[in-house]
Amino acid sequence: MTRWTLPPGKIPSAWFNVAPCLPAPLAPPLHPATREPVGPGDLAPLFPTALIEQELTAAPWIDVPGEVLDILRLWRPTPLVRAIRLERALGTPARIYFKDESGSPAGSHKPNTAVAQAFYNAREGLRRLTTETGAGQWGTALAFACAQFGLECQVYMVRASFEQKPYRRVIMETWGGSVLPSPVDQPDHPGSLGTAISDAVREAIGRRDTHYSLGSVLNHVLLHQTVIGLEAREQLTLAGERLPDVVIAPCGGGSNLGGIAFPFVPETGVRLLAVEPLSCPTLTQGRFDYDFGDSAGFTPLLPMYTLGHDFVPPSIHAGGLRYHGDSPLISALVRDGRIEAVAYPQGKVFEAAVQFARVEGKVAAPEAAHAVRAVIDEALAAKETGEEKVILFNYCGHGFLDLSAYDDYLHGRLPDEQG
Amino acid sequence: MTRWTLPPGKIPSAWFNVAPCLPAPLAPPLHPATREPVGPGDLAPLFPTALIEQELTAAPWIDVPGEVLDILRLWRPTPLVRAIRLERALGTPARIYFKDESGSPAGSHKPNTAVAQAFYNAREGLRRLTTETGAGQWGTALAFACAQFGLECQVYMVRASFEQKPYRRVIMETWGGSVLPSPVDQPDHPGSLGTAISDAVREAIGRRDTHYSLGSVLNHVLLHQTVIGLEAREQLTLAGERLPDVVIAPCGGGSNLGGIAFPFVPETGVRLLAVEPLSCPTLTQGRFDYDFGDSAGFTPLLPMYTLGHDFVPPSIHAGGLRYHGDSPLISALVRDGRIEAVAYPQGKVFEAAVQFARVEGKVAAPEAAHAVRAVIDEALAAKETGEEKVILFNYCGHGFLDLSAYDDYLHGRLPDEQG
Repeated sequence: MTRWTLPPGKIPSAWFNVAPCLPAPLAPPLHPATREPVGPGDLAPLFPTALIEQELTAAPWIDVPGEVLDILRLWRPTPLVRAIRLERALGTPARIYFKDESGSPAGSHKPNTAVAQAFYNAREGLRRLTTETGAGQWGTALAFACAQFGLECQVYMVRASFEQKPYRRVIMETWGGSVLPSPVDQPDHPGSLGTAISDAVREAIGRRDTHYSLGSVLNHVLLHQTVIGLEAREQLTLAGERLPDVVIAPCGGGSNLGGIAFPFVPETGVRLLAVEPLSCPTLTQGRFDYDFGDSAGFTPLLPMYTLGHDFVPPSIHAGGLRYHGDSPLISALVRDGRIEAVAYPQGKVFEAAVQFARVEGKVAAPEAAHAVRAVIDEALAAKETGEEKVILFNYCGHGFLDLSAYDDYLHGRLPDEQG
Repeated sequence: MTRWTLPPGKIPSAWFNVAPCLPAPLAPPLHPATREPVGPGDLAPLFPTALIEQELTAAPWIDVPGEVLDILRLWRPTPLVRAIRLERALGTPARIYFKDESGSPAGSHKPNTAVAQAFYNAREGLRRLTTETGAGQWGTALAFACAQFGLECQVYMVRASFEQKPYRRVIMETWGGSVLPSPVDQPDHPGSLGTAISDAVREAIGRRDTHYSLGSVLNHVLLHQTVIGLEAREQLTLAGERLPDVVIAPCGGGSNLGGIAFPFVPETGVRLLAVEPLSCPTLTQGRFDYDFGDSAGFTPLLPMYTLGHDFVPPSIHAGGLRYHGDSPLISALVRDGRIEAVAYPQGKVFEAAVQFARVEGKVAAPEAAHAVRAVIDEALAAKETGEEKVILFNYCGHGFLDLSAYDDYLHGRLPDEQG
């Protein structure tokens, strides 16, 4: 057997909060003007009360509302799959499992938090959400989630992705969302997650009926993604494994990695590995410091690894990994040595993605392809040592809306990169 | 509960052959030159022996080889889903179920037969397959299947689709396939399934190491698709239903409808409904006659509903439904009154698809959207009569590679059609 499903009643009914597992509490976010610690009231123009509470809580488990479970059941629990054809092609003794998040309506893990965020905003009477999107995965997810709760959705999309990936705009519009390229006031700028966050936050601050919604980085976002790791843990048991030896996921803002890895943080024997692009090497080459979440300096300062809030990464295909900063929770765990990080150039990433597609049939999103690259390297290392390592990774989304990336790779049009 | 899965061991181990259920045997295919009945030897330049046997057999069940099951297990059994949000939005007493074939590697039902065809060809020593593709669903599926068995794959793609949907070429190339627009010798011709079949058959006849593979129409193709209906039948029982009142699927060449509907043919209380585009109304406006399968007249003549082999339908988005003829098995069942047919203009189809996407989260392929249109109309009719009708339909594929169609619909760029 190579594929483990769970019945609909087995979606986790509580999210796992990693905050109490940290050796020390996170340093607080600082107000962008005063540089004083931010209180719940400072966040009220952007987020509903329930999410602010989740952002700051030290409770180990948070109940998932029934209205959220009802919608998650459209595609959850997601399957755990053993990549047995990849193992054979590599000739590795490692056992490779992936959590397949690509079957959600938006085709990625992003709706796990989009649905929760739309629910809490709708419950507190908001009528409209703004957000940023990089590759388009997050904006797609939020447009879907807003359609479920009758909210309007305004998406600011990093201009480089907006132009590379027109289908992304169409799918957001299909769910009733509106999409603008960012930065809105600089039509020649390729944009970044930082500029798009600025555009979205500016609009949310200016309208009482409108809140802002973020697809990664913040504690509550990563919290909502922990359904991935919680389900995977149960499914690994069904597959006859005790625990994975290593858990691997791509890392841009951190929701992908946090979702699958946080439930394993207390298991000290389990290695946790973040994979990032060499062109935006936040964890591997950034510094740990307070920095703004956006490029214009509208957001609170967060304690995190950062390349500087004015860093604009090259227009690589993994738009979801083009972020100057990182989740404070992930950053703290990297600083403490609990999470490792590695960076790859995109040519190496797509080489792995094409190999994976040919043996396993699955065409990965460029972000997911970063994990595939690291998985193959871990599996080849296990072949050298003969170790029967158990590898778990987050197949966070399909690449059907990112095929221009494969086109560029297959036809030799990816730009050269260092490394 | 709104979603029923089956364990991997529950993929049907035999295909269901509808031929013995017909009131009279099918009239034989005729040789294009002699107009005499075609024998197995006439088909040998195109197909392997095993498939020729399946094409002609009257056995009620055909075993699925283990090597085929091994690959089908990458995504099968597929889920049966109750569209409860759509039911609520329509206010209908009908219970609407769909078989979700969109989770296959290629994103449609097509790999069910592609894998079987690639397996039999590889087993009989072929090195290469040629085929046609309309919207690209079939070529995508065959490229994936060929990659599993180390076969080369040459796809002739209807030029209108080749130009509308560049991502389709990329995904075929990702799996190692080669793609050319058809007709190859008339660069200004929009092409049709008929011209693309001619291109593919011509090449297969000319090379000993090469066979031809067809994605629909023929008996063995529909046979391989019956895993859909067989699984659905078992899952409906799990859902507490005895039988559906009506089974609905889009119909171009017939593999979609045959796959879900044939296992219900012996149940005379179950209505079976084919949905076709008004711009290519083979079953609703064609004549029942012998005609060529392709436009150039290379293939045997088949007894079927046809619009004439020189009919070139307009370039609608549901490329997979742009076929002048239809499966002889489907045609016989329509002629005998066992299968009904209805035709819709594409504007009405995309109106239904957008409604479905907003309530159920799923962005349907244009072909699948035809079924959604008919399902909504059946459910609204049930609302008028108050009937608690059970509707089953084939959600044969996602529309992530067909989003230009949604773009045209949402921005008022679909051409006007009669009806």
